[in-house]
Amino acid sequence: MIETIKWQDNKVYLLDQRILPNKEEYIICESYHDAAEAIYNLTVRGAPLIGVTAAMGFALGAINIQTSDRAQFIAELEKIEKVLADTRPTAKNLFWALQKMMSVVRNAEDQSLDTLKELLVKEAQAIMDDDNERNKKIGQWGAELFDDGDRVLTHCNAGALATAGPFGTALSPIRSAIGQGKKISVLADETRPVLQGARLTAWELLHDDIPVTVITDNSAGFLMAKGMIDKIIVGADRIAANGDVANKIGTYTVAVMAKNHNIPFYVAAPLSTFDFALKNGDQIPIEERQGEEIRCIQDHYITPKKVNVLNFAFDVTPAHYISALISEKGIARPPFEVSLAPWQTTA
Amino acid sequence: MIETIKWQDNKVYLLDQRILPNKEEYIICESYHDAAEAIYNLTVRGAPLIGVTAAMGFALGAINIQTSDRAQFIAELEKIEKVLADTRPTAKNLFWALQKMMSVVRNAEDQSLDTLKELLVKEAQAIMDDDNERNKKIGQWGAELFDDGDRVLTHCNAGALATAGPFGTALSPIRSAIGQGKKISVLADETRPVLQGARLTAWELLHDDIPVTVITDNSAGFLMAKGMIDKIIVGADRIAANGDVANKIGTYTVAVMAKNHNIPFYVAAPLSTFDFALKNGDQIPIEERQGEEIRCIQDHYITPKKVNVLNFAFDVTPAHYISALISEKGIARPPFEVSLAPWQTTA
Repeated sequence: MIETIKWQDNKVYLLDQRILPNKEEYIICESYHDAAEAIYNLTVRGAPLIGVTAAMGFALGAINIQTSDRAQFIAELEKIEKVLADTRPTAKNLFWALQKMMSVVRNAEDQSLDTLKELLVKEAQAIMDDDNERNKKIGQWGAELFDDGDRVLTHCNAGALATAGPFGTALSPIRSAIGQGKKISVLADETRPVLQGARLTAWELLHDDIPVTVITDNSAGFLMAKGMIDKIIVGADRIAANGDVANKIGTYTVAVMAKNHNIPFYVAAPLSTFDFALKNGDQIPIEERQGEEIRCIQDHYITPKKVNVLNFAFDVTPAHYISALISEKGIARPPFEVSLAPWQTTA
Repeated sequence: MIETIKWQDNKVYLLDQRILPNKEEYIICESYHDAAEAIYNLTVRGAPLIGVTAAMGFALGAINIQTSDRAQFIAELEKIEKVLADTRPTAKNLFWALQKMMSVVRNAEDQSLDTLKELLVKEAQAIMDDDNERNKKIGQWGAELFDDGDRVLTHCNAGALATAGPFGTALSPIRSAIGQGKKISVLADETRPVLQGARLTAWELLHDDIPVTVITDNSAGFLMAKGMIDKIIVGADRIAANGDVANKIGTYTVAVMAKNHNIPFYVAAPLSTFDFALKNGDQIPIEERQGEEIRCIQDHYITPKKVNVLNFAFDVTPAHYISALISEKGIARPPFEVSLAPWQTTA
């Protein structure tokens, strides 16, 4: 089983996704700073896994606070929360997980600091277990969307590697459908610039013996025109109340092309990715990352060294391009204003 | 000035575009086999330059034939034609140039073999000069399509590096418009898998002090949605009689996205790229290239080594996505059945 994150001996072990598939190595976080750095530098990525890593980073920070002064302890925790929250702006799960941790703090006013530390470590573990449970349900609900023989395109990696468990979000329904005996093959967009599709989705599906073919992002549209793609499913970093979806850069283009070719376009995410406080996707902050991600691949320059680049890490797909949203609560279809309303009360 | 190809001392010198922008080196072709290999392995690429290289490769083959037996000489030339024609299937200019060379052979029945060799060397040079003249005119015609302040997206490289001269095809109108005093900036799609945009368009525009920003292929759609792209212009590898365009993989997606955002989408190519014998784009052969182009970047694996990949090098953009075609004859607008008719007689 692929293990992306684990808490052991009061340290956090993270599978280093920057060097997959060439090397399988773990880095060890001994402080919340290490965890924050790992989120920022993409050692871990994927909205659910970012959330779990932030929670464990927060717990790590908490157990290492030396003071016995409660006010100082809380002030330290708020600093830790801020450092972790400042790592990446787009994925809702990061802020959701940190809020969960802070509410443990608020609800433990009568407990000793040692007890609070224990509660925070337990909560981080609970967030991880809960995430796995949600992703498993996404698979159970979503399996019915896929038929025997389907050739399914996915963009980026919304698999086990994007979460803390074996299911993933977008890949969970595919795994479930295969588990039901359906033959399904996956086309993985390579997903420049960080190549999560070429590196991670390919590695993870090969690992699980699920047929996978890597294509360039440039090929997806032409393969749709050639009738070689039956369905599309992706994950999400943040979903607004109206169903607009922020996800890895390139998702918007895939969605527009899907609509143009009458191909169903599905988005799978746990409710921890939904941001019902945002009316629509215009309000989702879009991270712009450093240019070297485009200029270099594995430390080799592919562009002239000083050329200007633009590196938005995410884009927003308007809800009207989306055939269905899948969460642990079920399958929501347009109009999402109606179908998402019951989810809002249980987020 | 960028010199992509030259004939010198009965050899052909080719700027090695595989290693740009990191190194500027020439390879030397001493035989037609060398020229064929250079076309196949992408030392040179770009439809017009492929045509010129094939013509020079043919001339190189001709001058190196030892026999004084005319029938054997012609048989050798036919073999040379076949080897060069078999290098790449999509670009029309390759076959167009070889036909030009063969018609010199057919028209020289009364000439000695030595004279024929001279005529073929002269014809290859003439094809190069003619190509430059055509591309210059493309710029003169096309400049009016661009306005001061335009931010223009291009895909792949249809610049000087795709031709034998300083203008290019798609970049020729941009150069002309800038020459008229208009301020124009270029967004260059990096163009996976071979990265002609990131490597070649970026290098060539920096070389000529034209503002350029490299983006991932995944970003173009989102930048259109954000209102950051005013116009799009690309080259072509083959254009059918109805205006359908085969060009670098990814062009189709850019064109669909352009239509979706009401952004003009232009295609620039000399008449040597037009194939009026083909009714529409369905008949254009699309090259599928080796998987290592996707699996590796500069000899470094980015995917699991044994993963399946699909590598179509080109796609077809239906004419109804194209705002205008630009050739040395002027600007053709839809309906192309009407506007291309006069070009057909002068191809």
